[in-house]
Amino acid sequence: MGWRVGVLGATGAVGREVVRLLEERRFPVDALRLWASHRSAGDHLLFRGEKVEVEDLASSPVEGVDFLFSAVGDQVAREVVPAARRAGAVVIDKSAAFRLDPEVPLVVPEVNPQDLEDHRGIVASPNCSTIQLVVALAPLGREAGLEKVVVSTYQSVSGTGREAIEELWEQTRVVLEGGTPRPRIYPHPIAFNLFPHIDAFDETGYCREELKLVRETRKILHLPDLAITATVARVPVVVGHAEAVWVRTSRPLGAARAREILASAPGVVVRDEPARCAYPTPRDAAGQDAVLVGRIRDDLDDPRGIWMWVVADNLRKGAATNAVQIAELLAGAGGA
Amino acid sequence: MGWRVGVLGATGAVGREVVRLLEERRFPVDALRLWASHRSAGDHLLFRGEKVEVEDLASSPVEGVDFLFSAVGDQVAREVVPAARRAGAVVIDKSAAFRLDPEVPLVVPEVNPQDLEDHRGIVASPNCSTIQLVVALAPLGREAGLEKVVVSTYQSVSGTGREAIEELWEQTRVVLEGGTPRPRIYPHPIAFNLFPHIDAFDETGYCREELKLVRETRKILHLPDLAITATVARVPVVVGHAEAVWVRTSRPLGAARAREILASAPGVVVRDEPARCAYPTPRDAAGQDAVLVGRIRDDLDDPRGIWMWVVADNLRKGAATNAVQIAELLAGAGGA
Repeated sequence: MGWRVGVLGATGAVGREVVRLLEERRFPVDALRLWASHRSAGDHLLFRGEKVEVEDLASSPVEGVDFLFSAVGDQVAREVVPAARRAGAVVIDKSAAFRLDPEVPLVVPEVNPQDLEDHRGIVASPNCSTIQLVVALAPLGREAGLEKVVVSTYQSVSGTGREAIEELWEQTRVVLEGGTPRPRIYPHPIAFNLFPHIDAFDETGYCREELKLVRETRKILHLPDLAITATVARVPVVVGHAEAVWVRTSRPLGAARAREILASAPGVVVRDEPARCAYPTPRDAAGQDAVLVGRIRDDLDDPRGIWMWVVADNLRKGAATNAVQIAELLAGAGGA
Repeated sequence: MGWRVGVLGATGAVGREVVRLLEERRFPVDALRLWASHRSAGDHLLFRGEKVEVEDLASSPVEGVDFLFSAVGDQVAREVVPAARRAGAVVIDKSAAFRLDPEVPLVVPEVNPQDLEDHRGIVASPNCSTIQLVVALAPLGREAGLEKVVVSTYQSVSGTGREAIEELWEQTRVVLEGGTPRPRIYPHPIAFNLFPHIDAFDETGYCREELKLVRETRKILHLPDLAITATVARVPVVVGHAEAVWVRTSRPLGAARAREILASAPGVVVRDEPARCAYPTPRDAAGQDAVLVGRIRDDLDDPRGIWMWVVADNLRKGAATNAVQIAELLAGAGGA
């Protein structure tokens, strides 16, 4: 006996990945319904070899499902998610709308599955750059405490969505032909370029992506005062986010022990033989569900300082996989 | 009255830039000689509208010049630079061969011009990623001291040389056509990808580029015990290196004051109005001599913590411009 499952924003980069993963991970789906905006309504997605029609969010109410995966923007989520919950669904929401709501658990299954127990019909899935960070950070923190975390990110354009992927392809072609790229989605050319800006800036000079990383990490780790700071950058990569993470632990840990801990940490694959050029790249991570960690090494000046290089597929573990794993826990399903 | 000037490695990415800058900055050149390996000998470069033939390093001794700009690899530099000095030249060497030699000054003209006084015929120009870092870091250090520096870099392929630029173009075309990129110069595909590896790894798990950044910064700033650590990454950008730099100063400084200091620091241009999407990108820096700094902001947890985003043209300020500026100081020439 399975579940009635819905996907909201089904035709977006993350929505499509959710549909793919529900099949791949054999989530017990009895019936699947898909919703998207008017523009994509009437399209079909394949699920277990069958075409499923995409319904129009504007005319077809989101109801009649046990689990709803919501992969739409904050504004649409704020309207549709509470309505879907009232209609009886447990909603796993990928937007930022409810992540910091004290009544909504913010969950990465490898890190804080226990927080699911308190859900009231909405579970938030964190931002992509947060998920991969906490999967690698939590086991180190459990062992040695976290005194300070400094993160610099290298984030792919698929985090923005399908239009940004098209923009990167298109601008790349223009540059190869000797032309001048014209930004549409992004404020600056992204082909053969990069910029330290993801989401809007606030008056502190940080952009929202940086503040999400800080605030969501604190909530997930139950460390409301964790000293963590970040610079985020968008890079001309299609799929896969990388993060250079410097950690100062509270107690001495050391890279050798950190490597051991990470090697047995859930959801982590250590790829760390630099002499053989083995460290993760976005290209390696694309299509994978694990968080890949490499370049684990001691800060040579600080006995409690450690570096690591953390890479994951931002559409999978950074979004769709994490959401489906949450549903697996809620449904008592094992996962593939 | 001018000088007899030579450029060694004249046909490489940096050598060509040196020839261009000697003209652009009106360095007082009476006679220009160019040397390169056998493969490029016989080629011509334009200087002030005239063709200058490239001589074969193997058959034509490097002599008869007052200033020699050396833009070759460490191994060739180790042979040719001392010989050229014995032949009477003052050599400005871009390789890593002599940078940490206590008898060789390592100079960034905006930061430690006084070190030129002690030269004995060889002056080393630092690594690209070091130069842009110290230009931004030194003024903050002078004001408030430096307790800890954590750097993550985003480095363009032109730092490797012309073959790497070709590799990026070629792989990009292959990926656009749906093919699989085959690495030749780099250990991994670089098109739409990136990796945390520049130069060889040592037994500590750091690669040489990271250790250069650490050791050269200490030497230039005359802070042999400075706690500074780095992760470097190669990104699919042609020209322009970016660095996300987190600094903990010894005394409170604050982003507002740091911005003031940087705005009047030599060689720095502050571009820091995030609300207007104004922050430097590699594309902005390409072709510029200045080090561009933006995203200057306080660490929200640490009253002595500051972030900045530092970008420069790695072939110009990161290499050729710095070398020509050194020659300008040595020659008492003003620069453009």
